[in-house]
Amino acid sequence: MNLTDDQLLSLIRSHRTPFFLYDGDALCSHVSSILARLHPAVKLHYALKANGNVSIAALLRSLGCGAEIASSGELYTALKAGYEPEDIIFAGPGKTESELNEAAETGIGCINVESVRELRLLEKAAERSGVRVRAAVRINPDADVSGATIKMGGAARPFGVDESQLDVFFAALRECGHIQFQGIQIYTGTQMLKAEEIIGSFANTIRLAGEIGEKYSLPIHSINLGGGFGIPYFAHEQPLDMDQVLQHLNRLAAEAVQRMPGVRLIIESGRYLVACSGMYMTKVLYTKTSKGERFAVTDGGMNHYASAAFRGRRLRDNFPVKVFSAHKKQQDVDHAEEAGQQEEEVTVVGPLCTPEDCLVRKAKLPLIREDDYIGIPNAGAYGLSYSPVDFLGHPAPAELLAAGGQVYVIREHGNRTDALRHQRLIVPKTLQQI
Amino acid sequence: MNLTDDQLLSLIRSHRTPFFLYDGDALCSHVSSILARLHPAVKLHYALKANGNVSIAALLRSLGCGAEIASSGELYTALKAGYEPEDIIFAGPGKTESELNEAAETGIGCINVESVRELRLLEKAAERSGVRVRAAVRINPDADVSGATIKMGGAARPFGVDESQLDVFFAALRECGHIQFQGIQIYTGTQMLKAEEIIGSFANTIRLAGEIGEKYSLPIHSINLGGGFGIPYFAHEQPLDMDQVLQHLNRLAAEAVQRMPGVRLIIESGRYLVACSGMYMTKVLYTKTSKGERFAVTDGGMNHYASAAFRGRRLRDNFPVKVFSAHKKQQDVDHAEEAGQQEEEVTVVGPLCTPEDCLVRKAKLPLIREDDYIGIPNAGAYGLSYSPVDFLGHPAPAELLAAGGQVYVIREHGNRTDALRHQRLIVPKTLQQI
Repeated sequence: MNLTDDQLLSLIRSHRTPFFLYDGDALCSHVSSILARLHPAVKLHYALKANGNVSIAALLRSLGCGAEIASSGELYTALKAGYEPEDIIFAGPGKTESELNEAAETGIGCINVESVRELRLLEKAAERSGVRVRAAVRINPDADVSGATIKMGGAARPFGVDESQLDVFFAALRECGHIQFQGIQIYTGTQMLKAEEIIGSFANTIRLAGEIGEKYSLPIHSINLGGGFGIPYFAHEQPLDMDQVLQHLNRLAAEAVQRMPGVRLIIESGRYLVACSGMYMTKVLYTKTSKGERFAVTDGGMNHYASAAFRGRRLRDNFPVKVFSAHKKQQDVDHAEEAGQQEEEVTVVGPLCTPEDCLVRKAKLPLIREDDYIGIPNAGAYGLSYSPVDFLGHPAPAELLAAGGQVYVIREHGNRTDALRHQRLIVPKTLQQI
Repeated sequence: MNLTDDQLLSLIRSHRTPFFLYDGDALCSHVSSILARLHPAVKLHYALKANGNVSIAALLRSLGCGAEIASSGELYTALKAGYEPEDIIFAGPGKTESELNEAAETGIGCINVESVRELRLLEKAAERSGVRVRAAVRINPDADVSGATIKMGGAARPFGVDESQLDVFFAALRECGHIQFQGIQIYTGTQMLKAEEIIGSFANTIRLAGEIGEKYSLPIHSINLGGGFGIPYFAHEQPLDMDQVLQHLNRLAAEAVQRMPGVRLIIESGRYLVACSGMYMTKVLYTKTSKGERFAVTDGGMNHYASAAFRGRRLRDNFPVKVFSAHKKQQDVDHAEEAGQQEEEVTVVGPLCTPEDCLVRKAKLPLIREDDYIGIPNAGAYGLSYSPVDFLGHPAPAELLAAGGQVYVIREHGNRTDALRHQRLIVPKTLQQI
């Protein structure tokens, strides 16, 4: 986020909290810089699961990203955002028959198939839709070569087809006349911060794709390397060296194109693209002292940004937060912060009647007063979409996009009737008589 | 839940999964039996946060419950469900000025005030609305006399006014001419399973109320004892002895009425009232074997019932689940289960592309085949409302109410446009030109 504190404060004053704010200029330059550095054979797909706002999805499309979707709802959003069907990849371990039918009819770019049963359902869907459907196989590799913290391959997993079961898969594929085989996908893990682990995983996937092409005499059109590019949330985490990742990725791409002419490498990212340009902003409704400890109660919490809430976890660091004073100029706050003055240890909680709704636990922060604002940076990914927004019936937060000196409302505040959507008021007579 | 397995299976076959099912007959007899055993001076309020479905709220109202709400949205739902304003209690640590205004104008039964600032905001709201507003003070007691799992009193807390700060609170109250003081509330904790702990907490609250009435010369009209009545989710947990709780509660009520004629005791409950009569039902889309381990992938998971998902937690037991075979009669499954036959160790995951979406980890279950159903009992509370329903864009589940041999749809399935509600598609021109 490139907005200055003064810009943020003026923005806060003209918009009702709580809201998510996205710095569109920062987002664009961040994503554009990645896209500009990619080898022409590498295509970047935006994983809508990180942030499903249609304007954010449209913005990434306008920059040149493809889309990666996981449901009929995300397909709908991606199409609304202007993605061409062929630029959309459909992934996920639990695709329903109706979702496969819809994807087939839409002429989607690629469906990552995760089992023989799904392959057969897709073949049926393709036959029904009358067009050949492009599909890849998601593989759970035998060996975990990545060393990733959160592993999604190399062990027993519900995701993909085990490498050792590929004979069965490709035998089934040969019976599917309506499927146009594209290649393979391997998604090793998420929130990886070490370049060498990501590169190792990519190299392994490309090697495996080559071997599969030869062994099963299949043309490999695309190799989906997954993503998992992490961002540092906590003070002790080091940012990912993306330069190093891209440098090696481009080398791997050049080699792959030599061996497999026309092949396309796909990388997917949600968090890495959008997290850093977002901030979740709340207002301090109440401050209080209980048994000597200071508390601030804000107008939004785990119902809007569950990732940031402790939710009963004891062993976790605080997310960094930023205090915006409603009472004095921001530079005074910053100055006091630098000088270590006017700080207090404080616990920041949201408005829900549960101890789970804790955003900051006993952190040293600049003195917080009622009507001040608390912003949580890096909130552009897995924010609103990951949160139980109807819990306790508070209205959903707004989403704002700042760009070129303007602020656009890309999601209006929710209202008190939202939790009732699709509900029906029925009290059976038989019950009332009990 | 009193429905037989055959009734459940026939219900599954005529309704699309995933859905929450509530056994209305079981719910009614459960709640009616509690209400029938209460001393006339005790009033039971349903905490809508446990399940915000308007038909469930209306059902509890028809049985004689009051409502406990935590937001403008829940107030709206409670009024829609037919609760009289005076039967509604408004609680929560982060009430906004506009919520206080709305509650005052509605003529709500009682507002549980949690700080001096809130008291002053409420006085302003009452003055504006032109009526005297009924309010109680939520107290954070000096001593924690309960043994609740999740404690909400007896230590530094963001909830309520510290017992030691009551002088300041009541001094402020004397300046509030538009507030009609009702009494006190203490909410000690949640999910308590030991009757003696609950009773001890109740006795302490009543004692404190009496002392406060004398010390500050205030009439005590109502004493809100909170709730926290737990239910056993795991095999090792023993059910709460509610008979014992009610017996002692009634004794305490009789004593309180003697000392404070006309006083009303209030108990609140969400989970205990509605959890046990609910079941979350999903369909098995895929089964697979990975590295020798069995997996079942269902059509719903942490996006609908986050409480049941592991969400990265390692140290947790499995929730009990029930397998409904689509391929044979239920008694065969039960028989096989009793005989210990045809069981397998299986991990059940939802459809989301994340290892967090795990519903059952390596449990011995009757053999699961594709198109079978998996039901999670005790899902009537903190189910849908507690879950990130838009995450990954899958449609929201339906909610069904079974009663008197009929099944009523009290919430229709969501659709793919739901995640886009209140969103706007805007791509600023300045950004597209970058």
